[in-house]
Amino acid sequence: MTLVLTTYDWVPDFPRGFVRDIRVRWMLEELGRPYRVETVPLRDKSPDHVAQQPFAQVPFIRDGDLTLFESGAILLHLAEGTVLMPQAQRPHVQQWLIAALNSVEPFVLAWIVNKVFDKDEAGAARREPMMRRRLAQLQAALGGRDWLAGDGFTVADLLMADILRIPAQNGFLDDLHGLAAYVERATGRPAFGKAMADHLAHWRAADEKAGAA
Amino acid sequence: MTLVLTTYDWVPDFPRGFVRDIRVRWMLEELGRPYRVETVPLRDKSPDHVAQQPFAQVPFIRDGDLTLFESGAILLHLAEGTVLMPQAQRPHVQQWLIAALNSVEPFVLAWIVNKVFDKDEAGAARREPMMRRRLAQLQAALGGRDWLAGDGFTVADLLMADILRIPAQNGFLDDLHGLAAYVERATGRPAFGKAMADHLAHWRAADEKAGAA
Repeated sequence: MTLVLTTYDWVPDFPRGFVRDIRVRWMLEELGRPYRVETVPLRDKSPDHVAQQPFAQVPFIRDGDLTLFESGAILLHLAEGTVLMPQAQRPHVQQWLIAALNSVEPFVLAWIVNKVFDKDEAGAARREPMMRRRLAQLQAALGGRDWLAGDGFTVADLLMADILRIPAQNGFLDDLHGLAAYVERATGRPAFGKAMADHLAHWRAADEKAGAA
Repeated sequence: MTLVLTTYDWVPDFPRGFVRDIRVRWMLEELGRPYRVETVPLRDKSPDHVAQQPFAQVPFIRDGDLTLFESGAILLHLAEGTVLMPQAQRPHVQQWLIAALNSVEPFVLAWIVNKVFDKDEAGAARREPMMRRRLAQLQAALGGRDWLAGDGFTVADLLMADILRIPAQNGFLDDLHGLAAYVERATGRPAFGKAMADHLAHWRAADEKAGAA
């Protein structure tokens, strides 16, 4: 049965490219798994939406009988039994996937929430050193390796690189050449390119539909 | 080989009870797995510490040949093949474990960092509604069930309940009786009691050692 990925029906320009369905699209392209997209309204969130995603967010998936939310958990589930979760490296793949979610992303989000959502420059300035420290520590941990866990690209790299696109786009990797190269290596993969093209096409189609309405 | 859990040599009073080694202690008590504790200095962090935990934090473990950091990943690793990670519920256990780390804890930490570390009351007040909303959504998702994933207590409950101790202690569950009862149900388990006693005894012993020095 074709996997169903649910995202929003429409979003404004600024989060395009970053709505978390991109992570799941990327993963599905890496695996060559077909999927179709359904939507829930960004505004007027329904009880049915909340029943499937208790925080009223996206994405969530339906994979046969299984429904699942939390992009990190969706990635873990899809990675199971594939080359993106090599069994011998499982503890370290999980370690870096969770480091991305709990030790890197919260500091990136703390900065961007202050900067973009609250337009609180002083608050963003207070958060910036901690984010920069984490990024530098991550680069040091990566060292001269191509990928975080083992020799090959894993689900942990997919998630970490996706998170790092925010600091990369905001200039915070300009002096962290190793980490910048890591993000380019990951997002240079054809699967990311295809996923991003489909992600952006989804919002353009939503614009056209709204314009035609 | 006995598992080795590394935490700090000493911490001040205020984080006692919350240093994340408590999560691993609790898990090891649930599993009845013996372990011994090693320490790294809270101050003067060594290259050897950073080699084992790239963000210069604790805890990390050594389990035979495997060294592992990130408390969430340590819990996932330890849960593997045990009743705390029932195979049939794996996707949902992972979903709730990651929800704890990525959809609940960052909002709790954003509040407490403003409140306690930055002593920024206005910043904390701005973060409070989002934290409260996540807590209310979590209670609604739990509904009348005892545990988040399936019928029994899992590693996801251990982690979620540990995170919820902070809002519970700060009065944010006073009107969320279902969630308050959930935290009490989890932390009322003998394994938590034993883990917390050992965690607090570790800091008391550190005080005595410092006093004798």
